[in-house]
Amino acid sequence: MSDTLPRLVLKFGGTSMADAERIAHSASIVAAEARTGRGVAVVVSAMAGETDRLLSLATSLGGGLGEVETDTVLSAGEQVSAALMALALQRVGLKARAVMGWQLPIEVDGPPGSARITGIDPHLLDALLDQDTIPVVAGYQGVSADGRLATLGRGGTDLTAAAVAAALQAECDIYTDVDGVFTTDPRIEPAARRVGRISHDEMLELAAMGAKVLQTRSVEYAKAKGVVLRVKSSFLDAGSSAGTEVVCPADIAERRVVSGVAYARDQARLSLYGLDADGAQAAIVFSALAEAGVGIDMIVQARSRSGDSVNLEFSVEGKDLDRALAALRRHLDEMPGSACAHQTGLAKVSVVGTGLRGRADVARTLYEVLRSRNIAVRMAATSEIKISVLVDSDWLEHAVRALHSAYGLDQS
Amino acid sequence: MSDTLPRLVLKFGGTSMADAERIAHSASIVAAEARTGRGVAVVVSAMAGETDRLLSLATSLGGGLGEVETDTVLSAGEQVSAALMALALQRVGLKARAVMGWQLPIEVDGPPGSARITGIDPHLLDALLDQDTIPVVAGYQGVSADGRLATLGRGGTDLTAAAVAAALQAECDIYTDVDGVFTTDPRIEPAARRVGRISHDEMLELAAMGAKVLQTRSVEYAKAKGVVLRVKSSFLDAGSSAGTEVVCPADIAERRVVSGVAYARDQARLSLYGLDADGAQAAIVFSALAEAGVGIDMIVQARSRSGDSVNLEFSVEGKDLDRALAALRRHLDEMPGSACAHQTGLAKVSVVGTGLRGRADVARTLYEVLRSRNIAVRMAATSEIKISVLVDSDWLEHAVRALHSAYGLDQS
Repeated sequence: MSDTLPRLVLKFGGTSMADAERIAHSASIVAAEARTGRGVAVVVSAMAGETDRLLSLATSLGGGLGEVETDTVLSAGEQVSAALMALALQRVGLKARAVMGWQLPIEVDGPPGSARITGIDPHLLDALLDQDTIPVVAGYQGVSADGRLATLGRGGTDLTAAAVAAALQAECDIYTDVDGVFTTDPRIEPAARRVGRISHDEMLELAAMGAKVLQTRSVEYAKAKGVVLRVKSSFLDAGSSAGTEVVCPADIAERRVVSGVAYARDQARLSLYGLDADGAQAAIVFSALAEAGVGIDMIVQARSRSGDSVNLEFSVEGKDLDRALAALRRHLDEMPGSACAHQTGLAKVSVVGTGLRGRADVARTLYEVLRSRNIAVRMAATSEIKISVLVDSDWLEHAVRALHSAYGLDQS
Repeated sequence: MSDTLPRLVLKFGGTSMADAERIAHSASIVAAEARTGRGVAVVVSAMAGETDRLLSLATSLGGGLGEVETDTVLSAGEQVSAALMALALQRVGLKARAVMGWQLPIEVDGPPGSARITGIDPHLLDALLDQDTIPVVAGYQGVSADGRLATLGRGGTDLTAAAVAAALQAECDIYTDVDGVFTTDPRIEPAARRVGRISHDEMLELAAMGAKVLQTRSVEYAKAKGVVLRVKSSFLDAGSSAGTEVVCPADIAERRVVSGVAYARDQARLSLYGLDADGAQAAIVFSALAEAGVGIDMIVQARSRSGDSVNLEFSVEGKDLDRALAALRRHLDEMPGSACAHQTGLAKVSVVGTGLRGRADVARTLYEVLRSRNIAVRMAATSEIKISVLVDSDWLEHAVRALHSAYGLDQS
């Protein structure tokens, strides 16, 4: 059996590495996989809270995210947890060794604090696996061309895991504190069910919009390299987590139009009226917002009733609203005839599914369900695999539950 | 002026790196030296308490000192503090960069947890110094031939500092929480004075016997490589610490027969009677104690009164006594005619000085002073630069004060 199973990378996040007891439990999950005889490698995050502690130390001395010395501070967190995991594996009788990014090396490029992986040399990993030794790779970090440590940004250990899996032609199990991805947030809808299989694109939408299970770049990386990802719970006994498998759409046998209902709280809507029809003013607006560091989510552009100008609406996170307004006002003064309005107290609900493309009935259901419950749609936008609407915050939970039920997501 | 001053390595221990405030203060000391224009490098320990915290984490997962994975855990402490110091230096307008042992590299050999430095490549340090960038070297660690992190044992950062200074042909200031080495412990004798200059050998005796300021191996390394060491306080303002300079005996102008009075509490005396005169049984005894991990300090061998056997006396630390007795008894049963006795509740007082060699008057003074105060000498041993005696613990402080005064150490 062992020769037929592909190699496996197991990634453990901070909550799975929170203390000695949790590390030992995570090690028991690794041990169960290793004892099937398949080649196993591990990638770990820093112990829960450690990255924040280290960042706070760096900040207290004038450092900050995006500085190379801060990256040297932060990298220590995963160095410690990798070696602790190696010790835990040795204690249960396995051969294991901590491996830092610079030892492979994992080569990275780009700014400190948000570097990207440009290459992984699998030589040492292969050599360790050939000796039945489990490499425990420190996540979140690599070494730059000038020999400095650099980190990959928050959630970067997911990316390390995907990249190590690609380098080893392995599958990749991401262990976290939830047993996979759910059709919606179980805190809102207790009937939410675990999704067995999901495409990378659906995962991206669900992850970015509430179910923050997998870091976005790691899913993109896995998609590009064709790595099979699974999201599992390290809080269950070894072998007990069914989890969610993230695969290519072609590998999803059980087709379902809608995979899940995601949401985001604290959204605001910005409306700009009377902009030039040629789009020049819209370009100025977006560039001003980008400079102010405001992330824009949904965008709707419509011709004005008179037809000689356009109206632009978009959503931003509530915390960014004041910054967005300040940036806009500086420019709107120079755009005669333009006007600006905003609305707060909104939330976003998104219906996500690869089977959604071109299915007008999905949108129809959405509008019918919300209308029948007197939930006003303040804004709507679609992509190939999702429909998002803004609703009043007070109605968020009601909308999520209604849509979850309407698309049959509570049915097994 | 700057071109005439030799390069300088400044080492800061854990108490000098205890928190952001102390790191910033230590950085101000570095900045003052750097602003003279001389080439400056820094070597740092982990923040106070951090190595213990990390070791405790490793221990809780089955690790321990002397294991390679534990070394990976422990090395993180100095990685963090080196980058924090670099940040603190940048904040005061200096160029600085953290450098780990593996980046130079600092090559080490020998068992994990007590590795020894076999080589330092000064190339990167030279390049940084040429760019007016202060290298901040993570102490206590290097990289082994197989690419693993390895630590140098407790106090290993002193050794790193001495080795970096030797590689850079620099002088080496060791910053700690006391302003140099004192003629004795000021807590026992308030009239104790700071020693201005001291030889490496005297430093070794004083460091090993109470004034635990410098790690033994670092002094030996500095002696072998001719590195000038200074012990200074990081708790004073920049430039305010006079400190103690550790130099070759030839460089000590002001000759003083006795440099200091050191002491150690909780000593025990072991006495073995009736051993073979040819020394074979003594060899068995010492080998048994070594196997049991018992450190032996003073050793006195004397012929028995009858002349056909020898008596052997030695001192051990009180905490090692039970282990020593157990090891001895297994062997004494097989040595007919031998007997064993022990005495506890003793303390060691040592008079140290390079000028002591061959000066019988020093020993005479010692015996006279102790006898005049009715302090019994339970054992005595000499080396080239010290005379040590065991006295009853209750009399320790009295003996230290009396000897300190008798040798004129309270006189400026």
